[in-house]
Amino acid sequence: MTNETLDLAQQLIALRSVTPEDNGCQQILAQRLEKIGFHIENMRFGKVDNLWARRGEASPVLCFAGHTDVVPTGPLDQWNSDPFVPSIRDGKLFGRGAADMKASLAAFVTAIEAFIADHAAHKGSIALLITSDEEGPAVDGTVKVVETLKARNELLDYCIVGEPTCTHQLGDTIKNGRRGSLSGNLTIKGIQGHIAYPHLAKNPIHIAAPAITELAQMQWDEGNEYFPPTTWHISNINGGTGATNIIPGLVNMLFNFRFSTASTVESLQTKVHETLDKHQLNYDLGWELSGKPFLTSDAELASAMREAITQVTHIAPQLSTSGGTSDGRFIADICRQVVEFGPCNETIHKLNEHVNVTDIDRLSKIYQLTMEKLLT
Amino acid sequence: MTNETLDLAQQLIALRSVTPEDNGCQQILAQRLEKIGFHIENMRFGKVDNLWARRGEASPVLCFAGHTDVVPTGPLDQWNSDPFVPSIRDGKLFGRGAADMKASLAAFVTAIEAFIADHAAHKGSIALLITSDEEGPAVDGTVKVVETLKARNELLDYCIVGEPTCTHQLGDTIKNGRRGSLSGNLTIKGIQGHIAYPHLAKNPIHIAAPAITELAQMQWDEGNEYFPPTTWHISNINGGTGATNIIPGLVNMLFNFRFSTASTVESLQTKVHETLDKHQLNYDLGWELSGKPFLTSDAELASAMREAITQVTHIAPQLSTSGGTSDGRFIADICRQVVEFGPCNETIHKLNEHVNVTDIDRLSKIYQLTMEKLLT
Repeated sequence: MTNETLDLAQQLIALRSVTPEDNGCQQILAQRLEKIGFHIENMRFGKVDNLWARRGEASPVLCFAGHTDVVPTGPLDQWNSDPFVPSIRDGKLFGRGAADMKASLAAFVTAIEAFIADHAAHKGSIALLITSDEEGPAVDGTVKVVETLKARNELLDYCIVGEPTCTHQLGDTIKNGRRGSLSGNLTIKGIQGHIAYPHLAKNPIHIAAPAITELAQMQWDEGNEYFPPTTWHISNINGGTGATNIIPGLVNMLFNFRFSTASTVESLQTKVHETLDKHQLNYDLGWELSGKPFLTSDAELASAMREAITQVTHIAPQLSTSGGTSDGRFIADICRQVVEFGPCNETIHKLNEHVNVTDIDRLSKIYQLTMEKLLT
Repeated sequence: MTNETLDLAQQLIALRSVTPEDNGCQQILAQRLEKIGFHIENMRFGKVDNLWARRGEASPVLCFAGHTDVVPTGPLDQWNSDPFVPSIRDGKLFGRGAADMKASLAAFVTAIEAFIADHAAHKGSIALLITSDEEGPAVDGTVKVVETLKARNELLDYCIVGEPTCTHQLGDTIKNGRRGSLSGNLTIKGIQGHIAYPHLAKNPIHIAAPAITELAQMQWDEGNEYFPPTTWHISNINGGTGATNIIPGLVNMLFNFRFSTASTVESLQTKVHETLDKHQLNYDLGWELSGKPFLTSDAELASAMREAITQVTHIAPQLSTSGGTSDGRFIADICRQVVEFGPCNETIHKLNEHVNVTDIDRLSKIYQLTMEKLLT
């Protein structure tokens, strides 16, 4: 099996699938899955290819989720080898998408093939949800497939997202949730005027400062067992006409919450509005929810993965909810338990992205053992 | 004399002298002054024409100061008549520069002509310092002439700047000083990072806010008899990369003091540094002094002007130091007493700039009477 997973990973890396291009990756996966009894549905939304494949009709449904698209390469002359020509050096497989997440996709397929070879009449169903719009706007990808499944009441029990979750060595981290992301576009209004006649103006930067101070120091929640406390940060602030003798009429800020399940969208919005109102500010505030937080408690799926990881790697993984958002936020809407597990993420989105060759095979073995624990 | 001042004002308005162009205005003034015994010096610095004219060698030296350049017209279709074709309607003379300050220039010349006709052997000296770079960067204008005079130790006793100082009617306001202007370019440094990992970053906007709050609320001084308290305002603030998921590494601010003689440049700078340091900020701060404050106490010159104004207009002018900076800030460096007096400033820098026709003649009379009080 060793060569099979590595070979498939290399085959996928060789296909230049810069987001939102799939460039044939899903077809390769679909052909392999079809041969072992999967029903294939290609769901194209807008310019995005998505693949929904399922074997079996029964419950529980165990789904593997991931993406074929990769981020751009950055400066080619700073790569030690062509990012779209898979290259093995020093026990590492180099190429754009090697870690994020074509090794995981290859491991999904070979793990399922091995599992079915042993357990053709497994319990429940096995599914794959693969998109080519995870690294981009994520509008026509997983979220649309989830909406389609939900509309036909096709719900999932367990989902393993193959994102690269490990930090130092394969097996050290399972993600069992992600924080939510809530953004605000805030414009605080003053009165424009000449800086020599400040009594006729109202400086929006000056009146905003005490409110910013208070928001920056606020304890939004205390987090909980799985989540750190919610954080709030201004990413951009802009006020002023460029002229040095004008008090501007407006100052604009973009801010973002990364929030835990200890807060709700409504509770955070209310606190921001209360603070701005307390400071008697005149403002416009628009909100955008990029993703609600999700959390999978340490139940059957996490437990099965944990055991499988320890069997293969001999280390005990920790559960974590750190990091940015992932497609797990969408899948959690139709799936009882969602975890993420994949290779080390040290080089993702960077130059000379790579994955350890031995980890590719071990990853496949971990996915296979997890299936054995849940579906036999 | 009525027609003479109005005629000369119209002659000057007809010359399109948008800053820093003089376009022949100074030549007209110089020709008139030369005829009545003035020694003429054309001082061209860079692209700026300046005129220094003096009659007599003795003290005291009474100087009239002003500028021939005008601000741009703005949208021509919103003027009721061509801004460079002087036009009299409803008792008002319309044209760009009518109030700021070609009426004053005309009044200088006819006042001096009338005064000399009566007092050919006056006391002291009469001088004119005229630039064409007051509305622009003011780099090659009055400041350079003042440097030249200072270098040859040619100092002044009294200076009347012909800026439009009146607000409601001719005679209501003499400016006997101006606030200083001190600007700062402040960059507060944090540590850039991903908004999902705020513990690895340091948000410069957040750490700046308490310091801005404190600076905005600070009482810099209490002003004094002639000046309102010093004010501090941020004109521009910019931080952020545009990306909504990045905590920026820097936030930049431009700020400006309008300061009274109750503070010094050093005292203001020290207070800003102390505040930033107290908040333990890492920052770069560059300073630019646009003008020190100047103040002329209510002595001979202000007293003479005040009396002359009351004689002509029958109202009692108030002394004021309000408004922006003027070339008075430079002249104060070589002149014991500097005041500013000119027509109403309601329409300056605006569309359909105008001056009351009767005020043109009365202004000339006021300048003439002031000379009589000081030089006979």
